[in-house]
Amino acid sequence: MTDITLPATVHASPDMAEALRGAEAVVVVTPSVGVRSTTESMRPHLGSGVPVVVLSKGIEDGSLMLMTEVLEDVLGGRGRLAGLSGPNHAEEVGHGIPSATVVASYQEPVGKLFQELFMTRFFRVYTNPDVVGVELCGASKNVIAVAAGMSDGLGYGDNTKAALLTRGLAELTRLGIALGGNPLTFSGLAGMGDLVATCTSTQSRNRTVGVELGKGRKLDDIVADMKMVAEGVKSTAAVLELAQRNRVEMPIAEQVGAVLYEGKRAEDLVTALMLREAKAELHGIT
Amino acid sequence: MTDITLPATVHASPDMAEALRGAEAVVVVTPSVGVRSTTESMRPHLGSGVPVVVLSKGIEDGSLMLMTEVLEDVLGGRGRLAGLSGPNHAEEVGHGIPSATVVASYQEPVGKLFQELFMTRFFRVYTNPDVVGVELCGASKNVIAVAAGMSDGLGYGDNTKAALLTRGLAELTRLGIALGGNPLTFSGLAGMGDLVATCTSTQSRNRTVGVELGKGRKLDDIVADMKMVAEGVKSTAAVLELAQRNRVEMPIAEQVGAVLYEGKRAEDLVTALMLREAKAELHGIT
Repeated sequence: MTDITLPATVHASPDMAEALRGAEAVVVVTPSVGVRSTTESMRPHLGSGVPVVVLSKGIEDGSLMLMTEVLEDVLGGRGRLAGLSGPNHAEEVGHGIPSATVVASYQEPVGKLFQELFMTRFFRVYTNPDVVGVELCGASKNVIAVAAGMSDGLGYGDNTKAALLTRGLAELTRLGIALGGNPLTFSGLAGMGDLVATCTSTQSRNRTVGVELGKGRKLDDIVADMKMVAEGVKSTAAVLELAQRNRVEMPIAEQVGAVLYEGKRAEDLVTALMLREAKAELHGIT
Repeated sequence: MTDITLPATVHASPDMAEALRGAEAVVVVTPSVGVRSTTESMRPHLGSGVPVVVLSKGIEDGSLMLMTEVLEDVLGGRGRLAGLSGPNHAEEVGHGIPSATVVASYQEPVGKLFQELFMTRFFRVYTNPDVVGVELCGASKNVIAVAAGMSDGLGYGDNTKAALLTRGLAELTRLGIALGGNPLTFSGLAGMGDLVATCTSTQSRNRTVGVELGKGRKLDDIVADMKMVAEGVKSTAAVLELAQRNRVEMPIAEQVGAVLYEGKRAEDLVTALMLREAKAELHGIT
């Protein structure tokens, strides 16, 4: 985004001590791999009790921690922490296109502070006390975006993609419940909202990887052609590891993993899903 | 659909007595306005306890009944009844494109019977005991499809549409809870699934009405140009009447109603929604 002019009140600084001096609220927005090191460099300069919100989405390699869990691990204490997630393509937010998002916090006043700070005529902010649920949505939706892309690449229809999104969200919800989240968070902006925006956008890198896999191309060739990383290629493994550790059944994520890491053909994915035993819609959720 | 060949085992008959003779299961699939009269003509010929599933979606004028409620009103007793709803564009189902759906029934064996009868390699059927929720989803999603179309017609982005779908589903969920439904049904195939399929399809008449309204055209002109009825133009009034009767707040449906029936400009709809007071995401749901 080179066409957005930042307000003159925004100052950049390479010096963490200076950046945090007198800060009443802090926003962490590095790529997810940099959240731990950034937070560590913040720690000596951060006033006690100063609220911190993290916008980065992801599951940390190895520890399988969500981003607020990394912050808690480094800073100690969760009361001041919040996470923001929702259907917010940065290009659109930057251009003032109406968007909505969720701020999740353990303590209500922290969520309300960031709601007040971020809310504008074009950016509507909702609060939610379910931090784990909101963050897991943002960290795991890309797995389903890859599956939705495969369906498009295979030439399937609106019905197929809608079913993959819905059943995909159902398995993310089951994982969320196992981690202590609220199933209804997954029907909200960070869950359904972000999933819909990601899976219908032509700009989504994760969807694009799926489309190319659906067309029968090899993952290595697809990745070599892309300038930026498609998070879903890596995060599928983390999501599957979390699912295994918590004994949650995630048939779509498993199939995506088999295509990504084991060379299974995308066209066999939908067939495998359609032929599973007949089920009740809300099994594992209610 | 003129390019689908029905199996030779399908027989058409204009004689209801003949059509129902020896029937072990009945599928009602007329337009929603014809469900009451069709069911009345079925009644004298229908064996007691024969399961009946209705595929029609809608809210009956005047009575504000859902389709299974109409069947119950005519046939007496709900145990044998089921309703089917989901992201199932008929063209795609007819062409064997992978699709999934939900059968809702008051009694589990009835739902399982239709699950077994309808399930194929290309059509996956889930059961759900929440009849009111599943049917309300199918009857009310078009209101949100009109809103999503307006957003597209106004030139807004993926963020805006994803937010409208999600917040739209949240208000349908609040209405569903008031009518005795399960909020999680709305995250399922009949709710989120059908909403996604409808709002992203270029074939949806309801979405098209919204797009044209978003471009600033008058409703009368849009309707005059369309060969088939866009259900949302009428069902928005029924949904708003149900909401009022049950004291449920439905800000998006209200704005859609104001554009459809009171000549409000579509461009004022999103602004009105963005400027509402700050809220918690799950207010009215948990």
